Amino acid sequence: MLEIQNQRVGFLGPSGTYTEEALLKLLPVDDGDLVPYPTEADVIMAVERGEVGRGMVPIENSIEGSVNVTLDVLAFEVDLFIEREIVIPISHNLVAKPGVKLENITTITSHPQALAQCRNYITDKLPGVNIELASSTAGAVKLVSEQNGALAAIGPRLAAQMYGLNILDADIEDFEENQTRFVLVGKEPTPRTGHDKTSIICFIFEDRPGSLLQILQEFAYRHINLTKIQSRPTKKALGDYCFFIDLLGHVEDEAVASALKCLRCKIREVKILGSYPMANAMEE
Amino acid sequence: MLEIQNQRVGFLGPSGTYTEEALLKLLPVDDGDLVPYPTEADVIMAVERGEVGRGMVPIENSIEGSVNVTLDVLAFEVDLFIEREIVIPISHNLVAKPGVKLENITTITSHPQALAQCRNYITDKLPGVNIELASSTAGAVKLVSEQNGALAAIGPRLAAQMYGLNILDADIEDFEENQTRFVLVGKEPTPRTGHDKTSIICFIFEDRPGSLLQILQEFAYRHINLTKIQSRPTKKALGDYCFFIDLLGHVEDEAVASALKCLRCKIREVKILGSYPMANAMEE
Repeated sequence: MLEIQNQRVGFLGPSGTYTEEALLKLLPVDDGDLVPYPTEADVIMAVERGEVGRGMVPIENSIEGSVNVTLDVLAFEVDLFIEREIVIPISHNLVAKPGVKLENITTITSHPQALAQCRNYITDKLPGVNIELASSTAGAVKLVSEQNGALAAIGPRLAAQMYGLNILDADIEDFEENQTRFVLVGKEPTPRTGHDKTSIICFIFEDRPGSLLQILQEFAYRHINLTKIQSRPTKKALGDYCFFIDLLGHVEDEAVASALKCLRCKIREVKILGSYPMANAMEE
Repeated sequence: MLEIQNQRVGFLGPSGTYTEEALLKLLPVDDGDLVPYPTEADVIMAVERGEVGRGMVPIENSIEGSVNVTLDVLAFEVDLFIEREIVIPISHNLVAKPGVKLENITTITSHPQALAQCRNYITDKLPGVNIELASSTAGAVKLVSEQNGALAAIGPRLAAQMYGLNILDADIEDFEENQTRFVLVGKEPTPRTGHDKTSIICFIFEDRPGSLLQILQEFAYRHINLTKIQSRPTKKALGDYCFFIDLLGHVEDEAVASALKCLRCKIREVKILGSYPMANAMEE
């Protein structure tokens, strides 16, 4: 059980998102302490300002890849820690108002990631349909509940129930292994458990093409396994990248501490996003 | 001048997108041969089916990073070549119907990448505004021209002129060096010019954590410079990646051919997306 000074926890809203589902699986939070925000950036900035004690955001999906806004705000705009992670299976549903049938649908709405995860389904089952983008899947479901006509949403079962809509088709994602990883962001580093992961960002000097090779060699030399490598632009010029790396171990482990120390001699900056218990280890 | 069998060229529409602007800078195309498509995936699939001879799509932005749908369709759904690339500076404008002022705006709409590139501007100048996502910046501008009320779009100057809207504020992107790289996709490999780039995708065997290190070493050993490394999920499981790599040189260069041959002995698959003249070299 985590000790929370400010009990309030922000999450990507509105009510009924996959993020809320993930948060409630990870932590018991009283309804009154749940604070929805409209975007991932808003959640993280609310933690930075102290409006909420912690914030829950999606960071990576197995089909669509990283949630760029989450990475960028953590990298460039705040100094916070990833305190915990959780991975949950994502199953999308086609939802509409009672009475609306598949053949009546002329427009569908959802978050761009969810639409991308169901691209083949839409092409096959709803050819020629209009597509409207929404800032969350639950927001799309809410919108459908407020409008008349042949509008459908792609979204979570929880949201469909919450807003009184029918599920026309379930599990419509194109790929079977659809999982999203969420992180709980806060102001405190998490103590070592022995089954930890560490997230870092490596900023390299410009015009040193071999830098990534050097970084990987530091970890390989110490038998530290990497679970993720993601390049992102530093927002300075096309082709100028930083690297988001997740590795097995805690910053207090001797091998990890040594690798980070040597990296700091070689590259421009290493930003530690936090060490936290691995999702799988937590579920045991 | 490229020889085009099927003269028609698809692009991410509607008329007035940055993609159309980039296409017309790269190639002279008659108006009657320009074919707009609603999404990046639609453009590429139209080339694959032979509906158009070539297609132009955005692939990478200096602020927001890769255009994931472009990468994924090229990687997993078609066998096409990148024939040419072009990089253009991107400047966003806040546009609205004549008579609408900044203080009247209650909702703004644009492509998610453009909204992300102007995140700080929106927070500063339009706090609390509603955000509606659109599938292209020019589509957002067109929508504003069709609706009444206090709706504004973020989009290109060309589109604002085309749809008769006012520019309320120009150059509103948060970072100065905002550039997008576009690629022309077709069915023919491009001959060697001596100033070429090659795009490949490396698929690694699962559970071989050192694979990326091995890949980088093959290129470093031959002094081949990499201009981009981007990991993307293979859509099988969280943490299972392939790597999009751009390197300097042509597949017909001896060093590149040798590196690719050795890579093929070590990793599961190397998919060649094409060799093509470097954007900078072309502008000379």
